[in-house]
Amino acid sequence: MAKVKVSAFSISIDGFGAGPRQSLENPLGVGGHALHDWAFATRTFQRMFGKEGGASGIDDDFAARSFENVGAWILGRNMFGPIRGPWPDESWKGWWGDTPPYHVPVFVLTHHPRQSIVMQGGTTFHFVTGGIRLALEKAREAAGGKDVRIGGGVATIQQYLRVGLIDELHVAISPALLGSGERLFTDINLVELGYRCTEHVATPKATHLVLSR
Amino acid sequence: MAKVKVSAFSISIDGFGAGPRQSLENPLGVGGHALHDWAFATRTFQRMFGKEGGASGIDDDFAARSFENVGAWILGRNMFGPIRGPWPDESWKGWWGDTPPYHVPVFVLTHHPRQSIVMQGGTTFHFVTGGIRLALEKAREAAGGKDVRIGGGVATIQQYLRVGLIDELHVAISPALLGSGERLFTDINLVELGYRCTEHVATPKATHLVLSR
Repeated sequence: MAKVKVSAFSISIDGFGAGPRQSLENPLGVGGHALHDWAFATRTFQRMFGKEGGASGIDDDFAARSFENVGAWILGRNMFGPIRGPWPDESWKGWWGDTPPYHVPVFVLTHHPRQSIVMQGGTTFHFVTGGIRLALEKAREAAGGKDVRIGGGVATIQQYLRVGLIDELHVAISPALLGSGERLFTDINLVELGYRCTEHVATPKATHLVLSR
Repeated sequence: MAKVKVSAFSISIDGFGAGPRQSLENPLGVGGHALHDWAFATRTFQRMFGKEGGASGIDDDFAARSFENVGAWILGRNMFGPIRGPWPDESWKGWWGDTPPYHVPVFVLTHHPRQSIVMQGGTTFHFVTGGIRLALEKAREAAGGKDVRIGGGVATIQQYLRVGLIDELHVAISPALLGSGERLFTDINLVELGYRCTEHVATPKATHLVLSR
């Protein structure tokens, strides 16, 4: 059965999923890049950026798995870009250039309506102003029987977790400290929500944990 | 030079250092026992409980290191026992029986004065009502040039972290979810305090991280 899942989501030792002060220069917040060292080093990510090489092994297995059977994505507004409030114009089309690494429909949560954007390589950005449940409904429909992947950020994942809509959450704890930013597990009781740890593998670069209900 | 350190302090995936509702039956809070699976399995801990066997390897190396060169301990009141408020009598002498596993002076933070208790095996419990700095001063003096180990719990470690008095913090992240309880890194900016991750080793049972300033 198709799942709603979060995959390859990295957090710091002190629990942050993004650094503070996100901006055009720091899409992941200040210091946030360090969270993703394990992922950037993998063959899967190197290939995504059109490069040769990269590491195989456990980190790469998780990176590769994160893209398997994904029929649609859901992103929070801040993961789509640094602009807050109403869209000033149609120029911002995400952080990822003309050919984003999604290759399927991507539903962006926002309070501000905007026309869908068809990108190269199969990615279409749709903007949903009707809330997280409507976005999931649309994503499920678009996914055509495949999984829906919730990409983030922290606030978006928290919203879906709190209403019990995430089936599987793969978190990678990186050996980095961020000090401040957005904490993933604040004010969420994962035990009450029915999650348990169903997989635990550690590598020199990250500790991978899969939480499932 | 002698250090002030926290060693072998276990937290859950969701960041809790103890479960909720500590009691006589659940000294580590409900579910808190799971945090320490990696430690209980080691040769070092088995020997501490007078047993043969137990695992060697990385987990055991960290367990053994945690007891090396420790000249005195500091414990929070709740780590010493489940009693809150004034001491009703002199009968409570800790969770650990007649021969506690400290074998050195132990300074217990409390708001309620009490006579020192001399236990078997070299442990003496001293009760300090003058705050965390006075307790550290006394512990340093008693340690005679060796390290002072802050045993916990969460609130005690946080207090010492916030004023920058901890030199080294070894945290073990266990693959367990607690859902609620006491979070170790809430409202603490470890980067601003000058900490960085100086060691990172993972085993099937825990991810060991050493934070130093």
